[in-house]
Amino acid sequence: MRDPSEPFPPAGVLKWDENGLIPAIVQDATTGEVLMLAWMDEPALRATIETGQTHFYSRSRRSHWHKGGTSGHVQHVESIRVDCDGDVILIAARQVGGACHEGYRSCFFRRLEGDTWQVAARPVFDATKVYGPAAPPGESDPVVGMREQ
Amino acid sequence: MRDPSEPFPPAGVLKWDENGLIPAIVQDATTGEVLMLAWMDEPALRATIETGQTHFYSRSRRSHWHKGGTSGHVQHVESIRVDCDGDVILIAARQVGGACHEGYRSCFFRRLEGDTWQVAARPVFDATKVYGPAAPPGESDPVVGMREQ
Repeated sequence: MRDPSEPFPPAGVLKWDENGLIPAIVQDATTGEVLMLAWMDEPALRATIETGQTHFYSRSRRSHWHKGGTSGHVQHVESIRVDCDGDVILIAARQVGGACHEGYRSCFFRRLEGDTWQVAARPVFDATKVYGPAAPPGESDPVVGMREQ
Repeated sequence: MRDPSEPFPPAGVLKWDENGLIPAIVQDATTGEVLMLAWMDEPALRATIETGQTHFYSRSRRSHWHKGGTSGHVQHVESIRVDCDGDVILIAARQVGGACHEGYRSCFFRRLEGDTWQVAARPVFDATKVYGPAAPPGESDPVVGMREQ
């Protein structure tokens, strides 16, 4: 692992927002399905690169989380891209299980039909068994410390 | 077109940020390639739904823009999805030309290789011919008013 005090060249071209965060889209490396969007700060991006699994920063909990750290539904990183403006990251990953804390493969399981959002996918796991009956809404992999943090 | 003063039910489940915006990912409806991420306010989402082409709100210019309004590189909307938290939109679209103002099909044309971001795609059009030699960085379709605004 790289010493956190060492320079981190990949961060140089990134434009972090006023809270030091950048949105990261995660896409299924095989199917192209967009699985989720979450936010990273620099330590989360470092952890993602160094461990090969996605790590994020939860704005609601104000803490880091390792995706799948307790559910087992980790995301193995295949590639990391940045957009032209340097303010969005795109990660292609192999998703274990489902990305969504509500039990779906993708968080984008509702589609606009007329004026209403309709569920357009079937769950791939039982969210109440994985997260318990009172899973918090969103960004819901329970807090686990990032390694080396 | 719907009267802007009428209720807009799709907005009800959406969580707009403190600036009244929501990030919208645009994905190629055919290939699954992630093309770009931009921001929408409610009028931009209404215009997107009502015209069938993507409209956004530029945070840097503080104005609306119709993607492809001058370049011709419009995005024909195939579907609109929302994530579990209601704070991200995913649009599947048929992209005319390229999504990126730098001439690439996707804005995510740079991939992390070791510690550096390497260009990993070839341009699909000449950006200087479409936008001129001094194209502004990012969100760069020149400002055009949204219809009905």
